[in-house]
Amino acid sequence: MGTPEPDTIRAAVHAQRDAMLALFDQLRQDGLDEPGVSRDPYGDGEQRAHVTVTKAAHALGLEIGRDAAANLYMTLPGRDRKAAPLVIGSHLDSVPHGGNFDGAAGVLAGLAAVAALRTMRLTPDCDIVVMGIRAEESVWFQVSYIGSRGSLGTLPDGALNVRRVDTGRTLGEHIADCGGNPDALRARARHFDPAHIRAYVELHIEQAPSLVEARRPVAICTGIPGNFRYPDAWIEGRHDHVGLPRRFRHDAAMAGAEFAMALDAVWAEHDASGIPMACTFGRFHTDPAAHGMTIVPGAFHFSLDVRAYGQTILAGLEEKVGQIIQGIEQRRAVRFHLGTAARAAVGPVDPAVFGGLEAAASTQEIDVLHIGSPASHDAAAFGAAGVPMGMIFVRNENGSHNPDEAMNIEDFLDGACVLIQWVVTGLTGRDR
Amino acid sequence: MGTPEPDTIRAAVHAQRDAMLALFDQLRQDGLDEPGVSRDPYGDGEQRAHVTVTKAAHALGLEIGRDAAANLYMTLPGRDRKAAPLVIGSHLDSVPHGGNFDGAAGVLAGLAAVAALRTMRLTPDCDIVVMGIRAEESVWFQVSYIGSRGSLGTLPDGALNVRRVDTGRTLGEHIADCGGNPDALRARARHFDPAHIRAYVELHIEQAPSLVEARRPVAICTGIPGNFRYPDAWIEGRHDHVGLPRRFRHDAAMAGAEFAMALDAVWAEHDASGIPMACTFGRFHTDPAAHGMTIVPGAFHFSLDVRAYGQTILAGLEEKVGQIIQGIEQRRAVRFHLGTAARAAVGPVDPAVFGGLEAAASTQEIDVLHIGSPASHDAAAFGAAGVPMGMIFVRNENGSHNPDEAMNIEDFLDGACVLIQWVVTGLTGRDR
Repeated sequence: MGTPEPDTIRAAVHAQRDAMLALFDQLRQDGLDEPGVSRDPYGDGEQRAHVTVTKAAHALGLEIGRDAAANLYMTLPGRDRKAAPLVIGSHLDSVPHGGNFDGAAGVLAGLAAVAALRTMRLTPDCDIVVMGIRAEESVWFQVSYIGSRGSLGTLPDGALNVRRVDTGRTLGEHIADCGGNPDALRARARHFDPAHIRAYVELHIEQAPSLVEARRPVAICTGIPGNFRYPDAWIEGRHDHVGLPRRFRHDAAMAGAEFAMALDAVWAEHDASGIPMACTFGRFHTDPAAHGMTIVPGAFHFSLDVRAYGQTILAGLEEKVGQIIQGIEQRRAVRFHLGTAARAAVGPVDPAVFGGLEAAASTQEIDVLHIGSPASHDAAAFGAAGVPMGMIFVRNENGSHNPDEAMNIEDFLDGACVLIQWVVTGLTGRDR
Repeated sequence: MGTPEPDTIRAAVHAQRDAMLALFDQLRQDGLDEPGVSRDPYGDGEQRAHVTVTKAAHALGLEIGRDAAANLYMTLPGRDRKAAPLVIGSHLDSVPHGGNFDGAAGVLAGLAAVAALRTMRLTPDCDIVVMGIRAEESVWFQVSYIGSRGSLGTLPDGALNVRRVDTGRTLGEHIADCGGNPDALRARARHFDPAHIRAYVELHIEQAPSLVEARRPVAICTGIPGNFRYPDAWIEGRHDHVGLPRRFRHDAAMAGAEFAMALDAVWAEHDASGIPMACTFGRFHTDPAAHGMTIVPGAFHFSLDVRAYGQTILAGLEEKVGQIIQGIEQRRAVRFHLGTAARAAVGPVDPAVFGGLEAAASTQEIDVLHIGSPASHDAAAFGAAGVPMGMIFVRNENGSHNPDEAMNIEDFLDGACVLIQWVVTGLTGRDR
């Protein structure tokens, strides 16, 4: 049997339409937490999603496995079980009151891919592992790529002692709750040898409206940004009376505002020069225990995430942050306490995977964009570990990390067609 | 008996030194809520201060009274009980974790004044009423001058239904708790006919370090600022993913930062032109229920207090605020919701009272500054009601509305000397 025709592949993918709609619906029910869905990592929300996805994998006859980080592995056996597997995955957690598609779409695309292979009665050369990754959303533990780095043995020191911001319990405790093994993770146990993964591919909704703007369904990713972050920074000023003249103030909130505006101006300059970056003060607030209408704020707290696509650009931005702070400290008689910085390396996309996905889209006559991922993804953890990595983005209205995420099933199926065309071409395309 | 010599007056004031120190100490014990003191209005903290001050007034043999707003009146009878009284007062509440002197110093100065008159065996022409005013600090109910306007029948409509921000209970309920009569206040009951007050004088710690800077103990107030306030304003943006490119964002926190910086620039210009004003974002924060390190803030909340010494300056600033907001709404695709504005009129100091205090300082050879009050004070409510009003400021390190307020007792006694010299000259100075 030779490689199936593009139309056959397309039909096999579209045959999964109703099953996929039903799975997305079930996941929405599982995570419902109006407005939107909350799939809290290593908590009830994420657990329910794992149960639903595991059931679907059972129905497809896949092998089910879990690792020390309680990641979910759903394997379609290949002809050579010892060959390096292809991993198709994404995460099953969400931000609080997020949307239904961020993460889940990539896991379901993996299931659609193996289901389509089954429909076409194709056996791949190597195992195809669909991975339901844990705890990608760093808003909860303020650590990025927990599940994917857990599977690769690259979780940073101390991560297991970090506490989930809402429960106050440690990551280690949460992992144990879900049947994982924090002690094994501490001992650097890993599920994957990165050198023994053929490739890691992730489909994900786009988290910006570039595809909406360009009226195209799918994009191939050119790179994943690295970042530096200050999860718990604050500015120390002095609480004072509301009438205090300007020259006497140590206003921490005004200092925070000046800092944000200075970084926003740096961002605008980079934009104008065509150098993509982003800068977000997700938490940006006076102290609720001490603030009041008639008190000059003496403390101001913020989190900062700065991301870009090159290590030297990131290093330059971090230096700039230091210079800006120095100026504000002098002008406004305040002191910045940045706390511990977290850093994630830029995630390089593998040129061969990029080329293969590009060719697959062309074969499927799907008109794709090329975009640098605005967001971080588990794919970056695989890329950083040396695994050939690629990503497919699917058009999505209204951004992500909010209840209004809206991915059209047709666009999802177009993305899955690109993925499966690539799988079929690469892994089953040899005459046999 | 003629008017006592300045030295006699000074000695009579200084004779109160130990009693005043003991009273300040007791008030600090009463309100202790580390760091600093909390005398919550119409709550336990303020109540304890009322008990302490009432005991001291009893010991001085003063007549004790209360009104519908539960203000405290401690009266030294004058020779003509029907003559318009002189009122010397200030407030007994504080901000949360504030200092010991903001408010209390003015009430104790009134007690020192009547005690000194007693020491000198002087009977004033008219009653001298020392007033312990309720609920001046608007951080609690976000309404200004509650006690003083309650005594004058000028409390705004609806004020009694406002809730204290920490307890969630209404002002009316709180007043009833403390033996007041909210129904009478609703019916515009008043304790004072403003036309039948000889003058209202208030001693208060300075809330800026102008006197520290100028190395002088005492200042005479030239005016009390009016203000406009937005106690509960917010900016509506859109929650989005941390990686969203700049052009797609509706970042409410960045909009808040730009707004603060724009008003700060307006303030710097006014400063440079010698036009005093102040602008404070006391609460300035993302939404704790929705914010997170990896979420672009879709909502940003703030309170704003803008103050100045002329009605036309205030009107100009309020217009400017509107223009700034319009620009930001356009540039950043957000929407400002300012909520209900509160406004307080500029408080004019009576020229005769100002002149009298100035002359008294000169008689006492105390070197005074003239300063516009940076802060609002109950005196403004009396001034706005047409009562001849004046204020004395006492040097104070470290500002106010914080635990580090530091007023030297010698400076306090200098302020009291100015006050009592003025009282003696004006109210007992006639030959008899």
